[in-house]
Amino acid sequence: MPESVGEFDLIARHFTRPASRAVLGVGDDCALLAPAPGMQLAVAADMLVEGRHFVSTVPPARLGHKALAVNLSDLAACGARPLAYLLSISLPRADEDFVAAFARGMHALADAHGIELVGGDTTGGPLVINITVIGELPPGQALRRDGARAGDTLWVSGRLGEARLALEALRGQVVLAGEDFERARIAMELPQPRVALGLALRGIATSAIDLSDGLLGDLGHVLAASRAGATLELAALPRGAVLARQDPALQRLCLLHGGDDYELLFSAPASRADAVRDAARGAGVEVTPIGRIDAAAGLRLREPDGRESEVEARGFDHFA
Amino acid sequence: MPESVGEFDLIARHFTRPASRAVLGVGDDCALLAPAPGMQLAVAADMLVEGRHFVSTVPPARLGHKALAVNLSDLAACGARPLAYLLSISLPRADEDFVAAFARGMHALADAHGIELVGGDTTGGPLVINITVIGELPPGQALRRDGARAGDTLWVSGRLGEARLALEALRGQVVLAGEDFERARIAMELPQPRVALGLALRGIATSAIDLSDGLLGDLGHVLAASRAGATLELAALPRGAVLARQDPALQRLCLLHGGDDYELLFSAPASRADAVRDAARGAGVEVTPIGRIDAAAGLRLREPDGRESEVEARGFDHFA
Repeated sequence: MPESVGEFDLIARHFTRPASRAVLGVGDDCALLAPAPGMQLAVAADMLVEGRHFVSTVPPARLGHKALAVNLSDLAACGARPLAYLLSISLPRADEDFVAAFARGMHALADAHGIELVGGDTTGGPLVINITVIGELPPGQALRRDGARAGDTLWVSGRLGEARLALEALRGQVVLAGEDFERARIAMELPQPRVALGLALRGIATSAIDLSDGLLGDLGHVLAASRAGATLELAALPRGAVLARQDPALQRLCLLHGGDDYELLFSAPASRADAVRDAARGAGVEVTPIGRIDAAAGLRLREPDGRESEVEARGFDHFA
Repeated sequence: MPESVGEFDLIARHFTRPASRAVLGVGDDCALLAPAPGMQLAVAADMLVEGRHFVSTVPPARLGHKALAVNLSDLAACGARPLAYLLSISLPRADEDFVAAFARGMHALADAHGIELVGGDTTGGPLVINITVIGELPPGQALRRDGARAGDTLWVSGRLGEARLALEALRGQVVLAGEDFERARIAMELPQPRVALGLALRGIATSAIDLSDGLLGDLGHVLAASRAGATLELAALPRGAVLARQDPALQRLCLLHGGDDYELLFSAPASRADAVRDAARGAGVEVTPIGRIDAAAGLRLREPDGRESEVEARGFDHFA
């Protein structure tokens, strides 16, 4: 971490713990890492801005969790094993309670994945968080967006739409009972990155992406990269109990256009369904077949009554 | 880069060019890199906030240069060879002219160092820029802060203080003639990371740090890490023609407490002076001996008249 001499430096110490895996951790101009011989590196970064990616009332420990989770989700979508991460954070005030809780949430998730903070930056300014994650994987084994093939089954992990449902509730578009709101909020604020599933799907999945901008939008990225089309079964989309109690139009919005799911959407040959289920079982994650990849371009949605319609592959727009 | 579907996505395309060295560049959940076998990785990140690290009137191409330069400077201070970088940027408006110029300045510096942008994030929000750099170096060869030994000579690259002089002029604390102001501003806005020098100093320098927070503050970090003291010769500190024309008190402030120099401060055994000069010549950078490392703790400053005084190792505080 660059070391200015202000109060934010003292605050930055909350983030710093002794390095155990890194050759050299926080405290020099760079951190030093020693990747395993022959491995490739996977790197990704996500920036979270207050008022745009999270509300100011989010509990700081959950914010620390989520800032790292969304990045680990990118490694999961590539099938990479997380190694280390860097945190850059701009803070309006040197608020020690906030930082301590943020660090606690972040470190807890890092510990769960056996990775450590090796560097970054702390400064004054608007509340903006950027995390860069570094992972490793064997050459040629990355799960990419461009490998989906006609006939492949489309799968999704976990359940979709409750993060978006929480956002709709925060926006006053829907009223949820207290307990329901808390469950939806947990989906929004404490996403679980599917790292173990991503690792288990290497050699099985033909493509993968993490769902950050909504099912249709993210599927659109896969289809564009793979030059393929797809048909989705609306009734098959996995949803939790709270979302299942909402009216059908809201369910549809949350399932198809919900952002912030951080589940894996992936394709695999139909013949590998058992391997997919075994991988998911081993990773302790539920997976659901939700459609198939088509040779014909475009995205088709099959309604519960069997009707099929073309839909636009459009996701959640933070700027809408 | 995460791909939301807003206008900032279109803007992000200005940053994206085809990957040439990376296995997989921008456009999937992660970028993939293949470091040379047996090499260690050096990683660092710096966050720049408008109004705090740069003024809103900075030409965008210079801002793009500087955002990458301050990160490359961290790699230089470790003696690492730059490989790739990630850019996360939050922008108040999707201003295509701004982004095109910013990208031009950033890519020009990246090209000069043979590295490429492999990922990151683009979002709406306050103007905040975070770059993470990744470099490589052979195990055990990193220039660290903790290797300075009593008797070592202290060296600095380039010239100090003109970036701080430009800041004083912007703050109205000093009036510079137009041409002088432009020269000082170039020092502030277009720092040249000393990557070649850092590489050439491997095996010669015993410690190194890049000067971002001011000579005294950054030297203080080296002395703390190395558990040593130092004596600096004020008259030896290299300064450019514009700074040399200012009054002695202002020169002293800019030389000792100037931030944003992005020169290398390093130590080497006195017996290696010729090797240091050869390394600098090969790198095309001027270097100047400015003092020595002492066994006795503390930082002493020798004035031009020979008097010595203890000084506090304190740097430039962005929050002061």
